[in-house]
Amino acid sequence: MTQVIQFKKLENNFEYYVEELASLCQNDFSLINSVILDKLDSKVSLIQKIASYLILSGGKRLRPLLTSCSFHMCNNNKKIKKKHIVLAASVEFIHAATLLHDDVIDKSKKRRGLLTANEVWGNKTSVLVGDFLFSRAFQLMAKGGTPEILKILSDTSVIISEGEMLELSNEKDLTINEDIYLEIINGKTASLFSAACQVGAMSAKSNLEKVEAFKSFGTNFGISFQLIDDAIDYSSASKKLGKNIGDDFKEGKVTLPIILAYLRSNSKEKIFWKKTIRYLQQDKNDFEKALEIINKYNCIKDTIERATHFANIAKDSLGIFNDTKYKEVLINLIDSSISRIH
Amino acid sequence: MTQVIQFKKLENNFEYYVEELASLCQNDFSLINSVILDKLDSKVSLIQKIASYLILSGGKRLRPLLTSCSFHMCNNNKKIKKKHIVLAASVEFIHAATLLHDDVIDKSKKRRGLLTANEVWGNKTSVLVGDFLFSRAFQLMAKGGTPEILKILSDTSVIISEGEMLELSNEKDLTINEDIYLEIINGKTASLFSAACQVGAMSAKSNLEKVEAFKSFGTNFGISFQLIDDAIDYSSASKKLGKNIGDDFKEGKVTLPIILAYLRSNSKEKIFWKKTIRYLQQDKNDFEKALEIINKYNCIKDTIERATHFANIAKDSLGIFNDTKYKEVLINLIDSSISRIH
Repeated sequence: MTQVIQFKKLENNFEYYVEELASLCQNDFSLINSVILDKLDSKVSLIQKIASYLILSGGKRLRPLLTSCSFHMCNNNKKIKKKHIVLAASVEFIHAATLLHDDVIDKSKKRRGLLTANEVWGNKTSVLVGDFLFSRAFQLMAKGGTPEILKILSDTSVIISEGEMLELSNEKDLTINEDIYLEIINGKTASLFSAACQVGAMSAKSNLEKVEAFKSFGTNFGISFQLIDDAIDYSSASKKLGKNIGDDFKEGKVTLPIILAYLRSNSKEKIFWKKTIRYLQQDKNDFEKALEIINKYNCIKDTIERATHFANIAKDSLGIFNDTKYKEVLINLIDSSISRIH
Repeated sequence: MTQVIQFKKLENNFEYYVEELASLCQNDFSLINSVILDKLDSKVSLIQKIASYLILSGGKRLRPLLTSCSFHMCNNNKKIKKKHIVLAASVEFIHAATLLHDDVIDKSKKRRGLLTANEVWGNKTSVLVGDFLFSRAFQLMAKGGTPEILKILSDTSVIISEGEMLELSNEKDLTINEDIYLEIINGKTASLFSAACQVGAMSAKSNLEKVEAFKSFGTNFGISFQLIDDAIDYSSASKKLGKNIGDDFKEGKVTLPIILAYLRSNSKEKIFWKKTIRYLQQDKNDFEKALEIINKYNCIKDTIERATHFANIAKDSLGIFNDTKYKEVLINLIDSSISRIH
């Protein structure tokens, strides 16, 4: 099976820097992709088919690239065993498993421009293939991980499922505040970014200071990334990125722009949010009305400001490392991740 | 939170010997239950509620008891670290996770006489709490396992999901043969029995011969256990065990009694099976008619014979161990597992 990952070649955009990172980590990138391809294999042909459909459908491999990058930024010993390759693959398998289960939970119909696996093969198969990918992830980490690395990755899996569950139990709840929301996106997104970075550093037998630096980098990058995603859903940039403006609103998803807007709204506006988000009763012009209130209270601008706050922490966390090509591309990744909305 | 596990005290029945095993492993049993209770804890209260509902609702803890028993049959060194306790808890968490996802897949409404979690809280939460329990299982094994033990348990998780998927992709397919069916139940049931036994032996730093003996014991016990379960569904013993006769038939489940009956049926009878199982078009008297054909070709008797074959292999696999109370109760468990149908 061949694999084609296409990147848009626009200079200075996020995809451009992901590609830069992939070039810097070229050898690892090929090895990681080989492990992934190899481990998609199953004696049950339908598993292989569905898992390949998801994993080979143009994901950027951002998380495994972070593992590779952090390994190289921490590694001083050329002879060290390259255990980080299987760990990077493991991280991608955890990510893929959560995507499959997420799409079942959210009843999503499309991902990366293709029909979701649950749309094509149904929910049952998505649940089981997700379980398969989780198990493969644990097989890989068992192969490549020290006890400390296993702890990070298995703890992260717990945190991810808790984050998902926290989100589900607060679904359409307009009273959640920013802190609860940060806990949700830390679980859903940032914890795996963070683990991906940490296990790279740990595979290089790095000292605790560097591991902690990468932990902080991953967490803050992940949170800022997710907040910009949330903002994009209410901005004209969404079209540029192949997404539809207003999808989150239509699904009644409570993300930071909505949380801020609700908190700042007057009582008449609060009734509007309850009707459209909590009870999902949306009329034709309600999205425009929502945008109006969101902009009246600067909620997109402030979501970007919050994201920038976390992005700055992420960039500063790399202060202990020498200036290298690797560090440069990570900084550019962070900056361009914020610029996605402009 | 208190926990009540009730056993029927009928001498010589299966539950009686599970209780015997629990008494023999009493210290471990309390410790395992403490770890389970402790690890049900989550900052997301709904997770704790649902996971407790499932795990504290009267499961027999057969798998963790097998881990404890195999540990004690292999352990010669009283000072050895009792890592098998967390591993036994890990096995129970894997089991619980698969039950939650199974019930979603099968749209089951009841388990152990209670409404299933998916009936009470919906499919979404069952998927996520299943993921949480899987992750907890991996956390526990990462804590207690050597690389070899981690390999066994993570390999087993892959085999379980492959078995489930193999079953789903052959759903209502009357042309699957006995070998494919054995592969399915090896994945779904026997592999975890086997892993539970192996990790007990491995925690005792046992030699390969003993680990292999327990691998064989667990696998063959598991297969024979499942085959008797299948037979019970077509026998009057099902009522005694709190199950409804004919549930598998009503759901169109292709189990060994049906596989044998279909293979032995004449062309008119084959049409009946296609109508009732493949297309699930069942009339009022179809279950009686199914029983008639099944009995005409001795399919229950032969399913029990097949189960007895595997039970005998399981018993013989223990031949390398000295005669102890532990060994005696395992043999009694096997025998009484077969007798469940009488």
